[in-house]
Amino acid sequence: MSEHDAGFKAALEEAKQGAKEGGIPIGACLVDKDGKILGQGHNMRLQKDSATLHAEISTLENAGRLPASAYKGATMYTTLSPCQMCTGACLLYKVSRVVMGENNTFVGGDELLKQRGVEVVNLKNAECEGLMKKFIDDHPEDWYEDIGDAPKKSQ
Amino acid sequence: MSEHDAGFKAALEEAKQGAKEGGIPIGACLVDKDGKILGQGHNMRLQKDSATLHAEISTLENAGRLPASAYKGATMYTTLSPCQMCTGACLLYKVSRVVMGENNTFVGGDELLKQRGVEVVNLKNAECEGLMKKFIDDHPEDWYEDIGDAPKKSQ
Ligand SMILES: [Ca+2]
Ligand SMILES: [Ca+2]
Ligand SMILES: [Zn+2]
Ligand SMILES: [Zn+2]
Repeated sequence: MSEHDAGFKAALEEAKQGAKEGGIPIGACLVDKDGKILGQGHNMRLQKDSATLHAEISTLENAGRLPASAYKGATMYTTLSPCQMCTGACLLYKVSRVVMGENNTFVGGDELLKQRGVEVVNLKNAECEGLMKKFIDDHPEDWYEDIGDAPKKSQ
Repeated sequence: MSEHDAGFKAALEEAKQGAKEGGIPIGACLVDKDGKILGQGHNMRLQKDSATLHAEISTLENAGRLPASAYKGATMYTTLSPCQMCTGACLLYKVSRVVMGENNTFVGGDELLKQRGVEVVNLKNAECEGLMKKFIDDHPEDWYEDIGDAPKKSQ
C-alpha cells in the first residue's frame, strides 16, 4: 500500500476536484481484491448541502448496489481518517483494509476499525494534509460543521 | 418515548411507504429537542440501487445541512436497530437518543451507542417486526445484501 496505488491516486484526484469546486477537499476510492476500482467520490457537503455525502459514502454510493462478495478483500482509500459514519460504512460492508492519506487533521475511527479486524494503513501524505490545512484555514466553520462539532469560538 | 410519539409514527409511515414501493421496509425520523421533525425517510436500496440510503441516512440527508447545534438533544427514531453505518452517523452528529421500533430482526449498534453515551430505547413494536418478517420471508437475499452479509445458502 503506497502513494503509487491507483486507488490512492484516484482518491487524491477526487480531493483536488472537491477543492476546485470550493468543497471540503476529501476524496476516496474503493478498490476490489483484484485491483479493480469499484467507485470513487468526494465530499459533497457544500456542493449539495448534503449531511451524508462524505467522500467514503459518495464512493460507496457511486459503486452502487453490490453483493457482499464484491467488498470481500476490498480496500477503501480515503485522503483523511474516516469519521464515525464512514468507519461504520466500512464495517457494514466488511472492507478488508482502509488506507488513509493522513490523520493529523482529524482522527476518526482508526482504532475501532483495528479492533474489528480491518487493516488500517496511514500513508502520512503531505499533499492530503496540505489540502485540508488550506481549507480549514479559509473556512473553519464549514469543516467543524461537517464533523459535527460547533465552530471554534475564535471564528 | 413511546409508540405515540410523532417521530415514531412518522418513521413507521416511512417504513410502510417503503413496503408499498417494494423496498426494504425500514423508516426513520429525526426530531429535535423541541419536538420539531427535522427530516424523515426510508431505505432506498432497491428503489435507487443505493448502497448508502438506509432509513437513517435518508433521514439525515433529507434534513439537510445543519449546524451541530440542531442535533443537540435530538432523537433518531428508526423502525429497526441501526446498522453500523447508521450508528456511526448518529454518533457523528451526536444525537442524544436513538428510539428503535425493534431489534429482534437485527441487532446493530445498540451497545456501541450506549457505550458512547447515547440513550437507546427499544419500543418492541410488533408492526415494525411484522413488516420486516414479511419482507425477509419474501426476499431474503435482498435483506442480507443490505446488511452486508452473503445470502443464506438455503435461498
Ligand atoms: Ca460557511
Ligand atoms: Ca433480489
Ligand atoms: Zn465521514
Ligand atoms: Zn443502516
